[in-house]
Amino acid sequence: MSKVLIVMGSDSDWGKMKDCVVTLKELGISPEVKICSAHRTPEQAAELSKNAKDNGFSAIIAAAGLAAHLPGVMAAFSTLPVIGVPISAGPLAGEDALHSIAQMPPGVPVATVAIDGSKNAAILAGQIIAGFDTKVAVKLALLKEEMQDKVKVKQQKLDKILEEEL
Amino acid sequence: MSKVLIVMGSDSDWGKMKDCVVTLKELGISPEVKICSAHRTPEQAAELSKNAKDNGFSAIIAAAGLAAHLPGVMAAFSTLPVIGVPISAGPLAGEDALHSIAQMPPGVPVATVAIDGSKNAAILAGQIIAGFDTKVAVKLALLKEEMQDKVKVKQQKLDKILEEEL
Amino acid sequence: MSKVLIVMGSDSDWGKMKDCVVTLKELGISPEVKICSAHRTPEQAAELSKNAKDNGFSAIIAAAGLAAHLPGVMAAFSTLPVIGVPISAGPLAGEDALHSIAQMPPGVPVATVAIDGSKNAAILAGQIIAGFDTKVAVKLALLKEEMQDKVKVKQQKLDKILEEEL
Amino acid sequence: MSKVLIVMGSDSDWGKMKDCVVTLKELGISPEVKICSAHRTPEQAAELSKNAKDNGFSAIIAAAGLAAHLPGVMAAFSTLPVIGVPISAGPLAGEDALHSIAQMPPGVPVATVAIDGSKNAAILAGQIIAGFDTKVAVKLALLKEEMQDKVKVKQQKLDKILEEEL
Amino acid sequence: MSKVLIVMGSDSDWGKMKDCVVTLKELGISPEVKICSAHRTPEQAAELSKNAKDNGFSAIIAAAGLAAHLPGVMAAFSTLPVIGVPISAGPLAGEDALHSIAQMPPGVPVATVAIDGSKNAAILAGQIIAGFDTKVAVKLALLKEEMQDKVKVKQQKLDKILEEEL
Amino acid sequence: MSKVLIVMGSDSDWGKMKDCVVTLKELGISPEVKICSAHRTPEQAAELSKNAKDNGFSAIIAAAGLAAHLPGVMAAFSTLPVIGVPISAGPLAGEDALHSIAQMPPGVPVATVAIDGSKNAAILAGQIIAGFDTKVAVKLALLKEEMQDKVKVKQQKLDKILEEEL
Amino acid sequence: MSKVLIVMGSDSDWGKMKDCVVTLKELGISPEVKICSAHRTPEQAAELSKNAKDNGFSAIIAAAGLAAHLPGVMAAFSTLPVIGVPISAGPLAGEDALHSIAQMPPGVPVATVAIDGSKNAAILAGQIIAGFDTKVAVKLALLKEEMQDKVKVKQQKLDKILEEEL
Amino acid sequence: MSKVLIVMGSDSDWGKMKDCVVTLKELGISPEVKICSAHRTPEQAAELSKNAKDNGFSAIIAAAGLAAHLPGVMAAFSTLPVIGVPISAGPLAGEDALHSIAQMPPGVPVATVAIDGSKNAAILAGQIIAGFDTKVAVKLALLKEEMQDKVKVKQQKLDKILEEEL
Repeated sequence: MSKVLIVMGSDSDWGKMKDCVVTLKELGISPEVKICSAHRTPEQAAELSKNAKDNGFSAIIAAAGLAAHLPGVMAAFSTLPVIGVPISAGPLAGEDALHSIAQMPPGVPVATVAIDGSKNAAILAGQIIAGFDTKVAVKLALLKEEMQDKVKVKQQKLDKILEEEL
Repeated sequence: MSKVLIVMGSDSDWGKMKDCVVTLKELGISPEVKICSAHRTPEQAAELSKNAKDNGFSAIIAAAGLAAHLPGVMAAFSTLPVIGVPISAGPLAGEDALHSIAQMPPGVPVATVAIDGSKNAAILAGQIIAGFDTKVAVKLALLKEEMQDKVKVKQQKLDKILEEEL
Repeated sequence: MSKVLIVMGSDSDWGKMKDCVVTLKELGISPEVKICSAHRTPEQAAELSKNAKDNGFSAIIAAAGLAAHLPGVMAAFSTLPVIGVPISAGPLAGEDALHSIAQMPPGVPVATVAIDGSKNAAILAGQIIAGFDTKVAVKLALLKEEMQDKVKVKQQKLDKILEEEL
Repeated sequence: MSKVLIVMGSDSDWGKMKDCVVTLKELGISPEVKICSAHRTPEQAAELSKNAKDNGFSAIIAAAGLAAHLPGVMAAFSTLPVIGVPISAGPLAGEDALHSIAQMPPGVPVATVAIDGSKNAAILAGQIIAGFDTKVAVKLALLKEEMQDKVKVKQQKLDKILEEEL
Repeated sequence: MSKVLIVMGSDSDWGKMKDCVVTLKELGISPEVKICSAHRTPEQAAELSKNAKDNGFSAIIAAAGLAAHLPGVMAAFSTLPVIGVPISAGPLAGEDALHSIAQMPPGVPVATVAIDGSKNAAILAGQIIAGFDTKVAVKLALLKEEMQDKVKVKQQKLDKILEEEL
Repeated sequence: MSKVLIVMGSDSDWGKMKDCVVTLKELGISPEVKICSAHRTPEQAAELSKNAKDNGFSAIIAAAGLAAHLPGVMAAFSTLPVIGVPISAGPLAGEDALHSIAQMPPGVPVATVAIDGSKNAAILAGQIIAGFDTKVAVKLALLKEEMQDKVKVKQQKLDKILEEEL
Repeated sequence: MSKVLIVMGSDSDWGKMKDCVVTLKELGISPEVKICSAHRTPEQAAELSKNAKDNGFSAIIAAAGLAAHLPGVMAAFSTLPVIGVPISAGPLAGEDALHSIAQMPPGVPVATVAIDGSKNAAILAGQIIAGFDTKVAVKLALLKEEMQDKVKVKQQKLDKILEEEL
Repeated sequence: MSKVLIVMGSDSDWGKMKDCVVTLKELGISPEVKICSAHRTPEQAAELSKNAKDNGFSAIIAAAGLAAHLPGVMAAFSTLPVIGVPISAGPLAGEDALHSIAQMPPGVPVATVAIDGSKNAAILAGQIIAGFDTKVAVKLALLKEEMQDKVKVKQQKLDKILEEEL
């Protein structure tokens, strides 16, 4: 079973990252979740990243708010794809985290998803893993179809609302 | 040889995307570059994306400025990882493109790199492909080492400047 | 009776778009509301747009938040006027959607209204239709007069407040 | 021949608005261009707007930079569709004009196009007029096809560059 | 008694403008409050502004949110000083109104105060009127002293908190 | 002859403030220009402000870029109206100065004009002085008329361009 | 015992600054807290700053929101290091205060911490004082270790959540 | 002689950091300049920071643009005060670097100066060192006086310009 390493700065980010873990499991990917900080436990972050490949991980997902350095620090120590999730913590609503994660200098990319876009981080990890893990590829294709079906259900709900309210 | 599909809205973006093509080649990846537009040739965009997997591509890189919809449109039609490059075209200097590419809704991720970050798009594609193509993995590791060596050269340059100027 | 096609990404946008539907009806225009997504159901979006003219619609209103591509995608497939409503979803409060909708590249315009400005989308559709549908033109003129009368009512309310509070 | 009224604050905006006039003519629409200011000649602006319908105009295009009030002021005095073009004048690069034009309050819409998007203003006017003027509708359809052809030409140019440079 | 004309777009702005009216009264200035809109009742706005000087007003205070044109429109029709109060209405939290009011083009100034800064609008009006009305000048000087005294009271409160909490 | 005190942080701001001095003279107001800094010569700034009224000034105009504190500091020491001109110095293009000047806390207003809006600062000072100096009032009224005449000249220029270019 | 002077504009900022006072005490530094305003009590601010060194303070921490001039004003009157804390007051959520504090002109620095970052202001003061006060240096080192231990506790909490919820 | 460690990502930043080195020398502080990158040579950065105190440095100045992680990474490995200089590299003009440096999470402060504010970084380092190095304290006091004298020279220059130009 393919594995993804998830790192986040605090257990308080769990509410925003749960969707990521759930989606990875739906895609048949095994998530391992670590609390670690680019600033408070930088050596732990470096170790986790350096060993990620040898520990069998296929990608790293790093979530952080404010001056969000964790994704970039993980990317500094590994050649695995690192997916960054800007978290909308603090008064600037995640615009600071988006800048801190997306604007990486040439040489060390971070694959940035939307602010609080933890579900998309999981799907992107799935798309990366699907390159060599056909089980995940099949589940991804199913997920895409299900999304279309959900739109139909929403149309039915709306038709009902339109009938009732107007 | 692994292949990556690059799409961009106009040949005028070439100046900013050349680095991407050069870096892909350095990593031993074959790039194919197509001009196509989410708004002017939407059906061509859809076709390119739908067929990308069957045509042997392992990832899609899409560059766009302003209301940059091309990466999102490519992601809509494929389960391949789509890497989006916001281009700093127009008076808002790419902040509009960054918003249009990074802020994708749940279900359809785009792996966003920095504004004009076309080199990082290539490296990210390399990291994705390295999951199953060991030749690329080896080259990626070399690239990371080379970056460290370049820092040493820069230090020598600066030491010379410091001696001369101060 | 003139018809307008309204598309939105989810039934959860209904709260913000209801005003649009109500206002269209007040102007004597028939609205048809479809849930569809530029990213989740791109082919449905393309079909709706391509057939809109033949299906008798005179304009399209598309509402979307975040990386709001739906209005641009509708505009790509039709020569009907497309009105885009940026929705204030997510932590960036609609600034991302405003950029994604207003900053369309040359060749494919979207008529952008204010963030959450769904009522104005309806009035703008009315102004477009009034070019050939005199019944709508008459109702639009009435609406403009009513707005002036409402200001008078508000003045009376305020005069009362001023008397009481100060 | 259908007519569109174009207003702008100064002859210095001509460089950015010329494309609008040229495109209108290509679409078979007759443009009339007036210098007028919401702040320096407010009564002239009001008169132009009030009489626009009776003078045979089918739409108004208003361009302005900075605290760009002209489109809103034109919209206040007419039920014609008003298209606003934010101009990138001054140090805020048009973000101020975009806010001043797009964020109109409920009741009085302005159809906002991109910053400096004067060509799209013309096409949008064409789409509005095409609702009742079939000659314009035919030309619009041609324009859309031409855009697709131009993409092919750009592809050829790029292929040549790729061959030569790489 | 010197007089100031206050205009605002809706009675719903009263909550944010009450402080302005109260402060003007404290300074011995008589406020007259009118609901009027640059877009819904433009001719009423023009009339109020044109006649303001003859009606004995010494300054105009105009409050507006979103694409906040009211202060600029008042300034277009009068040589009285016009004070603009950007209101934090809508998802952009008043940044749009700040741009729409402060960024006036050369020739027609608006004296802009802080977002929701209605009290400062009153004090600024007082400072303008104090140039020729010594009673107001005296009260302004008192207000400045009172502000200093209030700081002392706040220090005492804080000292108490510090003692209790720490 | 009425007098206005102009303060700016450096002689390098002269290029942007010259228009202010010229306009004041056109309005029959005598300007006195001082280099002074809220941070480098804070006591000089305090003295200039404290004595401004006694020295016969009717208003203060303060220009500053970046963390533009000079207008606020002048306002702290005087009850004269203080007009602040945000200067577009540095990479943030004056958005920082606009925030630093406009967002004054309750009690101490600064009448903020546009970024680099030094001409409007002069006209606003003229409008303030016109409250008690009829000569200035007459000149202000003339200036307003001239602005309207200039629009006519611009129309003629544009008509010529339109004839020649199209 | 080393001392730090804390100034803030109002006792209402106490909620956001308490953490600063508590942390200073934990580091063995004595805080003195003064209410003072750059605009309402500018002379008190100047006096506090001028005398801070002679009164035995080793650093100044100044907190302010909106057009946050207090840190800059303190820095103008002293050569002590001044630490500025932008407070997220008002509709712009502290972006205005960040600009007003960080963007100081050459010659007079303010050491800016994050918006509402009052705890970091205390730690930074501790780092400054640790240069000559070894007791503080020891406590700082302990604080850094404690931060690492807290991450371990958070990991345990998260592991429990993961077990329970998934 | 007190020492300060300066780190920057590339020799291309030298143009913007030279002023820092020059000013440190003027203050009698010895600068040591190292090229190092949070992302390309993370272990070198960690080593430099960890050893900085033992190597006799009293403060660290770190300059970086874009997703500017270098100051935060230096702060993670040391209890020395770290001064961050956001560099205006790339299309976002340093707003991204300001966010990435200033918005550090609780526990690990970075003393942020203005975008491109390298001279102020040197003065702030001087203020920190002046706490225990009286020679630097004396030079800082002189620098503050010199700044006041420069304002007088600027006044003379401006007086001359005023005489000549007006």
